[in-house]
Amino acid sequence: MSDAPAYRLDELARRFELELRGHGDATIRGVSTLAAASPDRLAFLANPRYVGDLRDTRAGVVVLREEQASECPTAMLLAEDPYLAYAKIATLFERQAAAEPGVHPSAVVEAGARIAAGASIGAFCHVAGSAIVEDGAVIGPHCIVGDDCSVGAQSRMVARVTLVTRVRLGKRVLIHPGAVLGADGFGIANNHGRWLKVPQLGGVLVGDDCEIGANTTIDRGALEDTVLEEDVRLDNQIQIAHNVFIGAHTAMAGCSAIAGSARIGRHCLIGGSAGVLGHLEIADRVTITAMSLVSHSIREPGDYSSGTPLQDNRAWRKNAARFKHLDDMARRLAELEKRLARNKENP
Amino acid sequence: MSDAPAYRLDELARRFELELRGHGDATIRGVSTLAAASPDRLAFLANPRYVGDLRDTRAGVVVLREEQASECPTAMLLAEDPYLAYAKIATLFERQAAAEPGVHPSAVVEAGARIAAGASIGAFCHVAGSAIVEDGAVIGPHCIVGDDCSVGAQSRMVARVTLVTRVRLGKRVLIHPGAVLGADGFGIANNHGRWLKVPQLGGVLVGDDCEIGANTTIDRGALEDTVLEEDVRLDNQIQIAHNVFIGAHTAMAGCSAIAGSARIGRHCLIGGSAGVLGHLEIADRVTITAMSLVSHSIREPGDYSSGTPLQDNRAWRKNAARFKHLDDMARRLAELEKRLARNKENP
Amino acid sequence: MSDAPAYRLDELARRFELELRGHGDATIRGVSTLAAASPDRLAFLANPRYVGDLRDTRAGVVVLREEQASECPTAMLLAEDPYLAYAKIATLFERQAAAEPGVHPSAVVEAGARIAAGASIGAFCHVAGSAIVEDGAVIGPHCIVGDDCSVGAQSRMVARVTLVTRVRLGKRVLIHPGAVLGADGFGIANNHGRWLKVPQLGGVLVGDDCEIGANTTIDRGALEDTVLEEDVRLDNQIQIAHNVFIGAHTAMAGCSAIAGSARIGRHCLIGGSAGVLGHLEIADRVTITAMSLVSHSIREPGDYSSGTPLQDNRAWRKNAARFKHLDDMARRLAELEKRLARNKENP
Repeated sequence: MSDAPAYRLDELARRFELELRGHGDATIRGVSTLAAASPDRLAFLANPRYVGDLRDTRAGVVVLREEQASECPTAMLLAEDPYLAYAKIATLFERQAAAEPGVHPSAVVEAGARIAAGASIGAFCHVAGSAIVEDGAVIGPHCIVGDDCSVGAQSRMVARVTLVTRVRLGKRVLIHPGAVLGADGFGIANNHGRWLKVPQLGGVLVGDDCEIGANTTIDRGALEDTVLEEDVRLDNQIQIAHNVFIGAHTAMAGCSAIAGSARIGRHCLIGGSAGVLGHLEIADRVTITAMSLVSHSIREPGDYSSGTPLQDNRAWRKNAARFKHLDDMARRLAELEKRLARNKENP
Repeated sequence: MSDAPAYRLDELARRFELELRGHGDATIRGVSTLAAASPDRLAFLANPRYVGDLRDTRAGVVVLREEQASECPTAMLLAEDPYLAYAKIATLFERQAAAEPGVHPSAVVEAGARIAAGASIGAFCHVAGSAIVEDGAVIGPHCIVGDDCSVGAQSRMVARVTLVTRVRLGKRVLIHPGAVLGADGFGIANNHGRWLKVPQLGGVLVGDDCEIGANTTIDRGALEDTVLEEDVRLDNQIQIAHNVFIGAHTAMAGCSAIAGSARIGRHCLIGGSAGVLGHLEIADRVTITAMSLVSHSIREPGDYSSGTPLQDNRAWRKNAARFKHLDDMARRLAELEKRLARNKENP
Repeated sequence: MSDAPAYRLDELARRFELELRGHGDATIRGVSTLAAASPDRLAFLANPRYVGDLRDTRAGVVVLREEQASECPTAMLLAEDPYLAYAKIATLFERQAAAEPGVHPSAVVEAGARIAAGASIGAFCHVAGSAIVEDGAVIGPHCIVGDDCSVGAQSRMVARVTLVTRVRLGKRVLIHPGAVLGADGFGIANNHGRWLKVPQLGGVLVGDDCEIGANTTIDRGALEDTVLEEDVRLDNQIQIAHNVFIGAHTAMAGCSAIAGSARIGRHCLIGGSAGVLGHLEIADRVTITAMSLVSHSIREPGDYSSGTPLQDNRAWRKNAARFKHLDDMARRLAELEKRLARNKENP
């Protein structure tokens, strides 16, 4: 570990434009949690839940907001947004093996594929003859780049990613293992009781700087493309149906799902396991909380939810049973109000 | 694109038995949405949501119902079910590379495997010695055909599909990338606090003309088979547990899940992210709306739902908090009714 | 099938310490359901739902509780927990091809990888130079063992499993196809409207005897490890976010999801499609029913639920519409109570 990165505190303060309180000549060799940090580590406090850990930390330096400074027993770097400042600093300590340009001897690249000299194609990759891989792209082992697919410059498919048909990735796109982009949309027409498959003739368009999680699926469009604008961030096991449009800078948490032809705005946050029905529109800057179902279009920014709170099962059963008669309860309540109003008038 | 398909309007009308209104000699070279169509494209109107696009369309011809004919500014093909008619016509314009029969040199086929001469085995496939692949089957790159698995004639595994053990696919089955069929069912028995794995000795039986979406999982049975009858259509990321039975012509939307030994009828529609508990039965022609949980057997055809509607978070929080006391509210309401009834009797 | 396993009834009784009622010299050649069993098969009755099948069974012997003995028309083995006894017996009849030690010629093993002589590496596997595979481990076809990953003795990756980075598996871990362990956690910081990726520097630690289902994803930690203690059992399509901790002997059903840094106790049961929000704690021996959302920490053992019951859609719509005004209903109910109390005082 002799070549592990190391930075002086005053160097970090200068580089990230943060105010340092403490000795600038201490050396930081990595990042850590407040609870586990040793004196050569940098930690941060963003979530107030962890302020107890701050008081006891042995970290060499803590990134935090000024208002927590009095609680900090060690050197500190003051930041308006400690998590953001930490994220920038932590990249210094991330060691990622550089991929060697070239095609692994075990890969199958069909004649006609255009692969830039600076691109890297890993073991057991399969690249179709009509595919394009641009400069600096890194395609890890076991990936498939299918018909009419292209991978933009500096994009990275970590491993075992499948681009099926007509998928175009922008620059610096990051895709995690098991993701499948460009499979057939789920288009079926009922033909007197039997299903007839509807051809899926569109593609998938992924903007620059998008990230797509492990085992996430994004189907190609029926006629036009399924679209992710730039900087869309998708967690694991998300399902994006055909012809969905997701605006720039929207982030979706794990297991959320968007049905066909829905249109999601920019800067939205979609919670884990949330769902959006098809053919809806969601405005910019909308937040959907975890496990909510969006069943109508949302025109205004804000936070939206559905569902019921968690209870112990015995209490929940009683309440849930009453839910089945809620309309009846509402009618009876209105009836009582009416009778009491009458009583008042004619006591 | 000189060899792209092209059809005269009168030819399309004749072939699909639709009434043409307009000049029969116009040429159609593809399909499109109403909004994006150019004069050599065919479009369709099925969802009334898009009737505004109809009025402005530049399509060469539109497939629609007669009652919308007066709104259509261009040639039209009249259909009772425009989506179905479109689906049939669109297949003319789908170009799919024909797979060459034979085994890709990179594939590993173990001794004993029976592979029909007309079948195609793609790059990096692994076929077990006890496997059978029938004529015309197309197995794309990175697929695994495991022990005692068989792939019926004309079936297609697009890419990276895994058939683990004792999976038998019928004819013309289509499976999308990342799907896993025939993995162990989740059978565990509690042995004084530790889990003991229960052997999963059954298989998976998939009927003719089924379609299985990307990253969908279908576990093999514990004793008997997990069964999909013919023409079952599964979207992406669906979970089918061991010993589930799904009747013919049932379609399930993305992320839905069926627990062990549940029995789903024929011609059912299961909405996205819906769930069905284990050991239940659902009758034929049942529709479950998105994100509903089926917690008891359903004996009658019809539509079924659970959940609460989406609201802005502030309103939802207030209502959700009251849900925790719904049983208490119901009791208090009944109490008031009783008191008012007494008041009436003894005013 | 001449070499299929066969056991005399008295031998089974002795080996598994069960009381036999019936002739000990009958031969059992396999296991089956009560309904399908033939006279050379063993069946069991655990779920009272199937007691009807017991009366008509043709099984050679049935494993059941003493209180059902009078209903059983055939030989029986009495067990306090028939499912557990069955699970133990059934392993006798499971035939699993033994994997041959050694590295398949098609596999790519990078220089430096330490692979025990007794380990088996399947076709098309990719093993990084920093990886370790211990004795008796079986790595099926199409698996990836990435940087700084290790596979403990006797563990089995069935096929197409991806260990991305810093994943350490204990002994006898079983992982099903499509699972992805050690992908980047979903850590993003908002940088004036654009997302900045937060380095994910931790790993994944999986204890002995864990089982991980098909297409399940377990992200690596941001700073410290994501942890599964021993004997954790995960079904298919489960999502475990970064820095989650799952206590020993906990079992989770398909499609459930745990958000980042949540801490689940020991001996918990998490139902299908259930969700747990981030940074929460769940005590030992907690059961969460299917499709419930855990939105606050749970300090006491017990069963917990959220959601509403399934109804026919017409009734559900009416009740769901009222849910939007539940807070208003509660206020009006309280108001009526107040007025009636006043009336009583001042009639």
